[in-house]
Amino acid sequence: MPIAQAIDDLTTLLGERVSLSKPDLEAHGASESYFPNTPPQAVTYPRTSEEVRRIVEICARESVPVIGWGAGTSLEGHGQALQGGVSVDFRLMNKVLEIRPADMDVTVQPGVTREALNEELRATGLFFPVDPGANASLGGMTMTRASGTTTVRYGSMRDNVLGMEVVLADGRMIRTGTRARKSAAGYDLTALMVGSEGTLGLATELTLRLHGVPEAISAGICAFPDMGAATACVMETIQMGIPMARIEFACGQTARAFNAYAGTDMAEAPHLMVEFHGSPESTAQDAERFAEIVADHGGSAFRWSGREEERRALWSMRHNGYYAILASRPGARGVVTDICVPISRLAEAVEATQADIATSGIPGPILGHVGDGNFHAILLVDPDQPAEQQTAKDLAARMAKRALQLGGTCTGEHGVGYGKLPFMAAEHGQGWQVMGAIKRALDPQNIMNPGKLVPGN
Amino acid sequence: MPIAQAIDDLTTLLGERVSLSKPDLEAHGASESYFPNTPPQAVTYPRTSEEVRRIVEICARESVPVIGWGAGTSLEGHGQALQGGVSVDFRLMNKVLEIRPADMDVTVQPGVTREALNEELRATGLFFPVDPGANASLGGMTMTRASGTTTVRYGSMRDNVLGMEVVLADGRMIRTGTRARKSAAGYDLTALMVGSEGTLGLATELTLRLHGVPEAISAGICAFPDMGAATACVMETIQMGIPMARIEFACGQTARAFNAYAGTDMAEAPHLMVEFHGSPESTAQDAERFAEIVADHGGSAFRWSGREEERRALWSMRHNGYYAILASRPGARGVVTDICVPISRLAEAVEATQADIATSGIPGPILGHVGDGNFHAILLVDPDQPAEQQTAKDLAARMAKRALQLGGTCTGEHGVGYGKLPFMAAEHGQGWQVMGAIKRALDPQNIMNPGKLVPGN
Repeated sequence: MPIAQAIDDLTTLLGERVSLSKPDLEAHGASESYFPNTPPQAVTYPRTSEEVRRIVEICARESVPVIGWGAGTSLEGHGQALQGGVSVDFRLMNKVLEIRPADMDVTVQPGVTREALNEELRATGLFFPVDPGANASLGGMTMTRASGTTTVRYGSMRDNVLGMEVVLADGRMIRTGTRARKSAAGYDLTALMVGSEGTLGLATELTLRLHGVPEAISAGICAFPDMGAATACVMETIQMGIPMARIEFACGQTARAFNAYAGTDMAEAPHLMVEFHGSPESTAQDAERFAEIVADHGGSAFRWSGREEERRALWSMRHNGYYAILASRPGARGVVTDICVPISRLAEAVEATQADIATSGIPGPILGHVGDGNFHAILLVDPDQPAEQQTAKDLAARMAKRALQLGGTCTGEHGVGYGKLPFMAAEHGQGWQVMGAIKRALDPQNIMNPGKLVPGN
Repeated sequence: MPIAQAIDDLTTLLGERVSLSKPDLEAHGASESYFPNTPPQAVTYPRTSEEVRRIVEICARESVPVIGWGAGTSLEGHGQALQGGVSVDFRLMNKVLEIRPADMDVTVQPGVTREALNEELRATGLFFPVDPGANASLGGMTMTRASGTTTVRYGSMRDNVLGMEVVLADGRMIRTGTRARKSAAGYDLTALMVGSEGTLGLATELTLRLHGVPEAISAGICAFPDMGAATACVMETIQMGIPMARIEFACGQTARAFNAYAGTDMAEAPHLMVEFHGSPESTAQDAERFAEIVADHGGSAFRWSGREEERRALWSMRHNGYYAILASRPGARGVVTDICVPISRLAEAVEATQADIATSGIPGPILGHVGDGNFHAILLVDPDQPAEQQTAKDLAARMAKRALQLGGTCTGEHGVGYGKLPFMAAEHGQGWQVMGAIKRALDPQNIMNPGKLVPGN
C-alpha cells in the first residue's frame, strides 16, 4: 500500500510528529461548516521547511495526497482529506523569523496566527492589518486569499503578501517575489500562489507587508430603519471619499444574535459598525462627517469613541458574529454564503437575498464587509434534516448566481475549497479550464489537496 | 509557407488593416532602447476583440508567432518580432467602453493610452493614477506590469487592473476577474496575466480601478549636497508616515540634462521631486513636515506650490527625463537599468551604482521612483561602438546582481522582454522553470511573443 509505505517513511523522518490517532485524524477531517468529516490517513507536524519538502517528496513518490492545515478555521472544507492522504499541520512552524521595521515587512512561518504576529509586533509601532475575524494562521489566510474587516482600507492577502517560500508537488522548493515593494520580473508567482488553496504547493515561509499603527482610531455603531438606508449610507460614504478602515453591516437578526450571545442591547435593526484610522483630528472629523451622512439616511445617533476598550468590545462582538449566529439556533450548522458585488449593486444584492431567505423558512442572518461589496448570509440548518440542507444549498446557489449576474463573485474571501466548486464554471467559463491546465502543469499526479478548486480534480 | 497562408487569411479577415509595408514592419521591429530592429512579417490593426481572436486562431493554425503592440514605448524589446510573425497593433482598439463612477471603475480597449483615458475621465472627478512617464497604452502597461511616479501611493498595474478579457494561444477567449473589489474564487488569473508580456495571451479588454481626484495637490522640488542625504530624507519621510503621492530622485547629471533639455536652472546636484494629495490643509501640512526633514538633511529650501501650472511644469520635466538624458549625448542609445531594492538598502544600492558607473567611463545619469526603492541608470552608449555596449551591458548585469544580493529585483517596472532575460535564472531559481511550465501549458506551440520572459523560449 503506497500510504503504508509513506507512513513508514514519514515516521522515519518525523518520529512522534506523525500521528495516526483517531481523534487527531478526525480533527483534521473536520470543518467549521456543514461538511461531513473526511479524515486523512496520517497527520504530520513538521518543524522546518526542509521537513515539509521531504514530506511532499515522500507523498509524491507514493502518489499520496498532501493537504495543508493551518488553524482549521476555513469555511469551505479546504483542509478536508477528500481522498485520504497526509495532512500537514503547520502548528509547530509558528516562528516570526524576522521583523524589518525600516522596510515595514516581516518574514514568518505559516503556522503563526494573525493575533500572535500582532502581539509580537506590539513594540514596533507596526501591525499586520488583514483581519478575517477568526484567529486564522497566516499560511491559511495566504492560501485562501483571506480578507475581512479592514480590507476596505488595507487590502486583502493579495495585497499584503510580498513573497513566499513554496514546496511544489515534486518536492522542489521555490521562492516567489522579492523584498522589493514591486517587480516586473515575469509571471507573478506570488499572486498565483495566494489563494491557490494548497493545490499547487505548500507555503513554508511568508514575507508580509506591515503598516504603521495609526496615531488615532475612532470607531462607532449606528442603527438604520431599514436595509436600504444602511446601504445607501455606505455608498454615500465611499463616494464622499471618507477613508474608512472598517465598515461592517449586520442585519436585525444578527443584532438579535449579538444581544443573546454578548449581552448587548442593540436595537433589532440593521446596523453599521465603522472605524477610522488617522490623526486625532482626522479621525474625529471623519466620524463627524460620517454621522452627518447617517443622519441624512435616517440612522440613529452615530455613537463613536476613540477609547480602546470600547473599540475592542465592538470588534470582539463583530468577530464572534459567526459563533453568535450559530448559537442563535442550538445544534445548527452554518451554510455560509460569501458573495461580493460591485458597490453600486450592493443594495439590490442584499435586498434580493433577504427576500429569498424570508421565503425559504430557514434562518439566515446577514453580516458583512459592505465597504467591499461583500456580505455573508449564515444559513442555519439542522444537520439531521437533509431537506433543510438542500433548501440552504439551493438558496446559496441562487445567491451565487445572482452575484454573477450583478458582475460579482461567488466568494469574496472564503475561497473555493469544495463548497464553492459548483459555481466555478459559471463564474469563470473557460478560465476555470485554464486553472485546471495550470494545476496539471505543476501537479500532474494531482496529489496537492485533490478535490478542491480546479475542475475534474 | 505557413506565414504566407496566414497573411492570406488575415487579409481576408482584415482587408487593408493588414500591412506588409517595409516602414510599417520596421516600425514594429523597433524599440526605444538599444536593441537591433527585428521586424514582423505582417502588422495587423484589429478593431474588435473578435478580430483579435480570429487573428490568433489563424496564427495558431499556421504556428506563426503573434506579438502584441501598444504604443511602442517598451524599454526591453517586448514588442519586437524576434522570430518574425504577426504584430497585433492595438491602436484602433482605443475606445473607453464604460465608465462607472459609482463603482469607481472603467472598462477600456487596450489601445487607449493613459493620457487619453484621463482626458475622458476629466468630468467625472476620477482619474487613473498609474503613470510610467511615457504616454503608453493601457494594454501595454497591463502586460508589462507598469508602475511609475505615483505607485508609492496608488500602486502599480498589479493593483489597478480588476479584470481582463484575454485571447489565449488557441483562440479561446476568457474573462479574468469580476467587477467586485475582491474575490477568493480560485487562481488569480488577472494577476497572472498582468505582467505576462503577451506570452500567455493578448488582452482585448481591461477593467481598471479609478481613484478620486484629490481635492488639493501640493508639489515641490529641493536639492541635496549629496546622494546619501537625499536617500536618508526619503527613508525618514516614509518612516514618519508622511503620505507621498510621488517622490522622485534625480542625480546631478540628470539635473544638468534637464537644464539643457528644458531650459531650467536646477543646481547640478541630487534632487527630490515630491507631490502630496489630500485636502488644502493636509497637503500644506505634509509639505511643511517634509520641508523640515529636508532641512534636517542639509537640503535646499523646499520650494512647493499648490498651483497646477507649476506642478505640470515639474512633472513634464520629470516625464521627459529619459529623452533629456538621451539628448545629453547626441546619437547615443540608452541601456536602461531598472533595479528595485528594499527601501533600507536604497542608499547602498544607489551609491554602489554611482561608483560603478564612475569607473566605467560611460555616462549614466540616475533617476527613479525612490519611494518604492526603484531607480534607473540610463547608460548612454554610442551604437557604433560595440565595446561601449559591452561595457554598459556588463555594468547593467552587475547592477542586477547587486539588486538581488540586496533582496531586490532586476526590474521594478520595465519588465523582462528579452533585455532582462539573462537575470531571470538568478532572480527566480526554479521559479523561472515554473513560469516555463505555465507557459507551455497555455501555449504549447510557443506562438505568443516567443523569445521573451520564459526560459528556453
